[in-house]
Amino acid sequence: MMHKKLIQSCAVLFILASASADAAWEALPDVAPAPEDNPTTEAKVTLGKMLFMDPRFSSTGTISCNSCHNIMEGGDDSRTFSMGVHGKTGGRNAPTVWNSAFHSVQFWDGRADLLEDQAKGPVTNPVEMGVSEIEQAMDKVRAIPGYKPYFDEAFGKDSMTVDNAAKAVAAFERTLITPNSAYDKYVKGDKDAMSVQQVRGMETFASTGCIACHSGAAFNGPKMEFGQGFYAKFPTFSDKEYDEKYDLSADKGREEATGKASDAHMYRVSTLRNITDTAPYFHNGSVNNLSDAVRVMAKLQLNKDLSDSAVEDIVAFLSALTGEYPEIIMPRLPATSGYSLVADK
Amino acid sequence: MMHKKLIQSCAVLFILASASADAAWEALPDVAPAPEDNPTTEAKVTLGKMLFMDPRFSSTGTISCNSCHNIMEGGDDSRTFSMGVHGKTGGRNAPTVWNSAFHSVQFWDGRADLLEDQAKGPVTNPVEMGVSEIEQAMDKVRAIPGYKPYFDEAFGKDSMTVDNAAKAVAAFERTLITPNSAYDKYVKGDKDAMSVQQVRGMETFASTGCIACHSGAAFNGPKMEFGQGFYAKFPTFSDKEYDEKYDLSADKGREEATGKASDAHMYRVSTLRNITDTAPYFHNGSVNNLSDAVRVMAKLQLNKDLSDSAVEDIVAFLSALTGEYPEIIMPRLPATSGYSLVADK
Repeated sequence: MMHKKLIQSCAVLFILASASADAAWEALPDVAPAPEDNPTTEAKVTLGKMLFMDPRFSSTGTISCNSCHNIMEGGDDSRTFSMGVHGKTGGRNAPTVWNSAFHSVQFWDGRADLLEDQAKGPVTNPVEMGVSEIEQAMDKVRAIPGYKPYFDEAFGKDSMTVDNAAKAVAAFERTLITPNSAYDKYVKGDKDAMSVQQVRGMETFASTGCIACHSGAAFNGPKMEFGQGFYAKFPTFSDKEYDEKYDLSADKGREEATGKASDAHMYRVSTLRNITDTAPYFHNGSVNNLSDAVRVMAKLQLNKDLSDSAVEDIVAFLSALTGEYPEIIMPRLPATSGYSLVADK
Repeated sequence: MMHKKLIQSCAVLFILASASADAAWEALPDVAPAPEDNPTTEAKVTLGKMLFMDPRFSSTGTISCNSCHNIMEGGDDSRTFSMGVHGKTGGRNAPTVWNSAFHSVQFWDGRADLLEDQAKGPVTNPVEMGVSEIEQAMDKVRAIPGYKPYFDEAFGKDSMTVDNAAKAVAAFERTLITPNSAYDKYVKGDKDAMSVQQVRGMETFASTGCIACHSGAAFNGPKMEFGQGFYAKFPTFSDKEYDEKYDLSADKGREEATGKASDAHMYRVSTLRNITDTAPYFHNGSVNNLSDAVRVMAKLQLNKDLSDSAVEDIVAFLSALTGEYPEIIMPRLPATSGYSLVADK
């Protein structure tokens, strides 16, 4: 078990990692781990997919989980800041839901231990789904008769609760895995799967030190116990040009969730999987170009100035982390027969 | 060919129809007709589904066709008035896109002859997708490299035009058909497919005169030439209570599109297919209960006061018009690699 201080300080880990010659390159698992009290079942996944896509329990009836975490795209919304009910916008960029099962903790600041906890957050966020009390949203779900058999099947009788709805959504999200990227094929033995430039970029990625934080199968750090976060301070180093241009320090990161000064500017390390599909980048979505994002990270996290060719190589490597999105059948959202839950009257 | 004045006056048709003893009950066709210059092809349908689901060419990057015409629901958004960019709302209820291929014309006021024309409307509507010029939206589509091969396949080289995008969306919409309702099975010979009450409701529906306008396979009037509208005046009769309660005459209907006084309060006759799934009802979404909608229609269109049991029977029959929604695989929306089209910068 790693010491907590070590876990929280990527800078230290980086020194360890860059000292190590043989980085352990891991392919993405086909199945995501689930917490003991919420094993993934087909019934939960079916229900969770419906709830994930259903906008009706938001305050306006227009915002679903998928609105900001669009699984038809990169699992996000391509926006700087997401747009919730009544066109309101928040202050952080929507992280991708793809492979979120492999995140150590949820939200940029890790304020939710598990996907089950995360799923409840946006419902009552005034700039996301905008419902005052989460039970109000659940009342709407309960008012849709067609949902009952799906809850019965997934959780047994009388199971239409917020906790079970969140469990179902989490179970669905644990199936959102994108395997078989060029990188995965490469590390499984197909040495032709990546181009010469991508392989060079992989080496540069490791030797530059990116891998200190972006390690593991999802490139977001070592495998952690459920609910244990893997954080890094961002920015670690300062740079006048970048500070002015991207305003990356205005947000206090995890401190805003915990109130602890020691958590200032700490963020959960993000996955790099499918990063070509999740621009714009960083917690404030301020960098809308993957090459710039790589250059900024090297400077602000590792105090290194990358050459243009090193940046190009790393970007080529990162593009090898974009995997295969599984085919998903659209759910039918159960109807309310002859009346609407979200009409004005 | 019916005389235009007859077509435009459902009241007259109603007298003809209710005089006829043998209403011709038709099942929904499995395939929708397509205009000569846009035959439905698999390549167009594939591309059209992507464009239909893609929010990125709206001004905020948040509104797709599916936002208001949700094919995971009844092809609408369950709202009184749809909510477009920045939380803006319009003044008419979103009609269902399911079976819209069988509409005589498009929009409540028939201002678009064909689905191809309709598809372009919401893009530049300031309270829908909110783009100033439709070519700006198309520029965004053109800026997504992954769309090109789909246009090539559907329309040939150098085909990324607004007209072709609209044709693709229309081709996809022509596949949104819901066959095999209880009613369809019944009229095809399975006399057990509808309940006794539903059969009674079917007879009441005909004898009351509803079928005068709501005739044909989609219950929205006789089969018309492409681009020829089948309109009815709504309300035809006035009723103090309903006028005050639902404010159905504030909207001038087709007159607002044509500027002609003779088009005042004329609307394209709506389909009744899947009407259980498309509440709230009417052009202003003012009636959020199918029973009330039936009662209001009988009074305002036929000057008849229906008994409670007649209303219940008709509602039971209408529920037999809800068909089977086909399974649809979610499209993958082609990514822009390493940058976002809709970020602030």
